[in-house]
Amino acid sequence: MTFSASSPVSFVRTAVDTEIARFIERRRTQLLEIGSELAPAVDALEAMLSGGKRLRPAFCYWGWRGAGGDDVAEIHRAAASLEFLQACALIHDDVIDNSDTRRGLPAAHKRLADLHAAEGWRGAPEAFGRGAAILIGDLCLAWSEDLYQASGLELEALHAGRTPFDAMRTEVMAGQYLDMLEQVREGGDVEATLRVMHYKAAKYTVERPLHMGAALAGRFDDLAGVYTAYGLPLGVAFQLRDDVLGVFGDPEQTGKPAGDDLREGKRTLIVAETLERSGAAARARFLRHLGDPALDGDAVAWMRGVAEESGALAACERRIDDYVGKATAALESGLLDDAARSPLADLVVAATDRKY
Amino acid sequence: MTFSASSPVSFVRTAVDTEIARFIERRRTQLLEIGSELAPAVDALEAMLSGGKRLRPAFCYWGWRGAGGDDVAEIHRAAASLEFLQACALIHDDVIDNSDTRRGLPAAHKRLADLHAAEGWRGAPEAFGRGAAILIGDLCLAWSEDLYQASGLELEALHAGRTPFDAMRTEVMAGQYLDMLEQVREGGDVEATLRVMHYKAAKYTVERPLHMGAALAGRFDDLAGVYTAYGLPLGVAFQLRDDVLGVFGDPEQTGKPAGDDLREGKRTLIVAETLERSGAAARARFLRHLGDPALDGDAVAWMRGVAEESGALAACERRIDDYVGKATAALESGLLDDAARSPLADLVVAATDRKY
Repeated sequence: MTFSASSPVSFVRTAVDTEIARFIERRRTQLLEIGSELAPAVDALEAMLSGGKRLRPAFCYWGWRGAGGDDVAEIHRAAASLEFLQACALIHDDVIDNSDTRRGLPAAHKRLADLHAAEGWRGAPEAFGRGAAILIGDLCLAWSEDLYQASGLELEALHAGRTPFDAMRTEVMAGQYLDMLEQVREGGDVEATLRVMHYKAAKYTVERPLHMGAALAGRFDDLAGVYTAYGLPLGVAFQLRDDVLGVFGDPEQTGKPAGDDLREGKRTLIVAETLERSGAAARARFLRHLGDPALDGDAVAWMRGVAEESGALAACERRIDDYVGKATAALESGLLDDAARSPLADLVVAATDRKY
Repeated sequence: MTFSASSPVSFVRTAVDTEIARFIERRRTQLLEIGSELAPAVDALEAMLSGGKRLRPAFCYWGWRGAGGDDVAEIHRAAASLEFLQACALIHDDVIDNSDTRRGLPAAHKRLADLHAAEGWRGAPEAFGRGAAILIGDLCLAWSEDLYQASGLELEALHAGRTPFDAMRTEVMAGQYLDMLEQVREGGDVEATLRVMHYKAAKYTVERPLHMGAALAGRFDDLAGVYTAYGLPLGVAFQLRDDVLGVFGDPEQTGKPAGDDLREGKRTLIVAETLERSGAAARARFLRHLGDPALDGDAVAWMRGVAEESGALAACERRIDDYVGKATAALESGLLDDAARSPLADLVVAATDRKY
């Protein structure tokens, strides 16, 4: 997803980046007082916190503005706290999936494993990298709370914001666990995949951050329904767009090799739809290719063909259109502050209108 | 460490156990609504939260009472939140160390790996167990905060308690990282080992929980110094007693095989003292044995002999005595509420007077 420099989203990103950098610098000082050997751990943490899309902070911020909140540094900080939660999720996810890269850079566990190897320390570099990354992710999770609490918002507001914040953390971890389970059980039918998307993408990325913004502004009770009506379909549509791009995306646009999700064997909705809509022979061959790290261009082209001819691609696109319509309609609510209506509409387009 | 049923510590344990059980039951309901397949994850989490010594809650509780706080359910809940933080540390530590047992029961990652194997799921059971345990530990860390915030204490009190609570989490993770670093660098001289003990044991287990109790009662400013003077030496003495027992402990008393820490290769202070006080030949042989999983009784006896004859054991015992004296002296402060003086003195004895 790319945003123009002047968009309401890139504005949030700049403000959030500033708060993240300030917070890390203060914590770096504290950690280096404990031990200068902690520097590589802070560097790895900082690297994971740079360059994200800041989607969750953007929804939290516009959830607050939609509830009539002002543009103040306190909400930038509270919104920025969600990036530390996300950093924990990404760092731990990379350990769980044993993925060595993240946004084209070495994953946290890989950085620390490389340090171990370069220093010639005892034992296996991978084990050290994994252990260090677990601890760095834990730090991110603890710091997420610290930044939230130190945002400078009123204590009553912070207390009100806890309900969605707590739910969000439990739900994303539960969603990750269910996702892991779907992978190993080779389940991943349409229904199970939608449930994982509901928790990992729709609630975690869109709905709960909006709820937090509303709750922090003291407007959870009247706005939660509006934000749910907007956030759940948008979150699923956003993830679906990502999934379609993972199969059909142009490497020049996505920055990933063609058919990357197929090579990784991800049990996405388009895969589930393809399997449910194909005959036994095509399904068996599709499953043989799925997750093959040596998948070549011909096989990717064949798999794309099956996804298209089975009607799976069209089903996904219909679903995206349908959900985009629902999310957009929810913005007509008179409860929303006008300041947020157009930015929230922009976010729908930005999240779902990417081409392949 | 064992406490009599009527001790002020076992009293805290019972109250804390009740709050932990209540909290988990509420969360279990929430998780099972997300997906019934989450049941084994909640079971593993619950198992890790049963049977601990509840040391950190005890120090938090008596820190509060020493500051004049009443015996109310709110402080039981706030104190219980520290057990969820500790559960995260233990679950992740077992993954990092690849330890399959904890308190004689399967570690969380082992339980989930066993489930994977029993169900015949795809992929390596160990990788699934590790991934699941990372997520379960993350849940514990998030829930620690949730229980703290839902304790029912005044928002101003909770805000004041954050300073030590935040510091505690950063320090324990930094301490774990430094500990991991000492193991792989084969460093672990006396000074480096004392630094890890300072963060992982003294501050995390004793000083910060006491600080939290004082801060929650609005008495951090005047009591922090007293609790530091009591807590830091006591924390190191407690860890030292554990380390000495790890080498000299009677299996019938400790529940672990004789010389277990030697077999695991732990870089404890008694090991550091032994290495610094031995000649080159003895040091080389000691290092060859250290961490040998097949270490036999004769080798353990020889290593114990070196630790004793080098003066390392006596040095550790002197240090324990010295620190116990300092911790006990700190309790004479007139700032402490009398209700806590005798329980805090009992805790010194309970933590350091275990025999081998």
